[in-house]
Amino acid sequence: MQFPLALERLVHEFSRLPGVGRKTAQRLAFSILRNSYDETKNLANALLSVKDQIKYCSVCSGFTDIDPCGICQNPSREINQICVVEYPNNIFPIEKSGAYKGVYHVLMGSISPLDGIGPEQLNIKKLRERINDNEIRELIIATNPTVKGEATALFLQQEFADRINSITRLACGIPAGGDLEYVDDVTMTEAFFGRNKFS
Amino acid sequence: MQFPLALERLVHEFSRLPGVGRKTAQRLAFSILRNSYDETKNLANALLSVKDQIKYCSVCSGFTDIDPCGICQNPSREINQICVVEYPNNIFPIEKSGAYKGVYHVLMGSISPLDGIGPEQLNIKKLRERINDNEIRELIIATNPTVKGEATALFLQQEFADRINSITRLACGIPAGGDLEYVDDVTMTEAFFGRNKFS
Repeated sequence: MQFPLALERLVHEFSRLPGVGRKTAQRLAFSILRNSYDETKNLANALLSVKDQIKYCSVCSGFTDIDPCGICQNPSREINQICVVEYPNNIFPIEKSGAYKGVYHVLMGSISPLDGIGPEQLNIKKLRERINDNEIRELIIATNPTVKGEATALFLQQEFADRINSITRLACGIPAGGDLEYVDDVTMTEAFFGRNKFS
Repeated sequence: MQFPLALERLVHEFSRLPGVGRKTAQRLAFSILRNSYDETKNLANALLSVKDQIKYCSVCSGFTDIDPCGICQNPSREINQICVVEYPNNIFPIEKSGAYKGVYHVLMGSISPLDGIGPEQLNIKKLRERINDNEIRELIIATNPTVKGEATALFLQQEFADRINSITRLACGIPAGGDLEYVDDVTMTEAFFGRNKFS
């Protein structure tokens, strides 16, 4: 038996979202059928509003509904400290931690020769301009601790070593609250290499 | 840091769906930001179409975009055999199996005294009418094998025993392809009680 057409179409659309298979898509679609019309309208409107209102910041390429974004416009942020991330959504967990008061730069990806993505395909030209136009005190490379992210970090380090004194990389190690027993070998090795003196 | 308003609103709307927590809602919202405007519009339209077009069948209360539904209208279905289910979406897995050629009746829930749901709150009056107006050969009770589902099944059996010769209940037992090692006690007991002769 086929679902009624409209239902089948919704299941299809849901199943295109990441991590949503056919079964989950069906469960979501059935919940939409149970919800009120207004609840569903809210979701549909929220979807379109996001596409209408959220743009990339013309300075850092982060997500924003104003341009430049709230971080780039904020006079209390240190504009001579740039944190480089792969994707716009990487900014949120850093902001949530409250550990950083500088500004950001989004690369829109990471170097991946197998996928045909080299430095030219990334948002690096703009980063170079920002570095040339401003006195940058520190470049913090916060790409992911993956092969692609490390390759990107290495490239940026070599690219800007002559222009910026301090190029740093986020520490890799055991997650806070983690258990030594469940730490993988690579992370454990990184934690040993990056060990700190008690201060 | 707060998300931009439109993004926050979408995360909130996604997190109201079943099985979607804040983290998953964020992941879904970020994927919407990555998708094209047209893809997102398709999803928004599919949501509203479902609410506009899918109704409950006036006969069996299953989901449908025509009334009566395709099953109730189909002349090749046996209308003197009614399968009773709790919710409209319970019809789909039964139809998918292809094991059943009769019609359905959706109760819109199950008896649950603790939640204040008795037989009067369920779609039983209509079932009674259908049974009075037609010569019903068999009533197959396909409520879930849970406490509420069993209570509902028992009620229906007592309610219609004098009017229908054959009132049956779906077999409970070991799932096909399952492993005896992982079968729980209740299911195992049911499988023993319901054991069949080789034919």
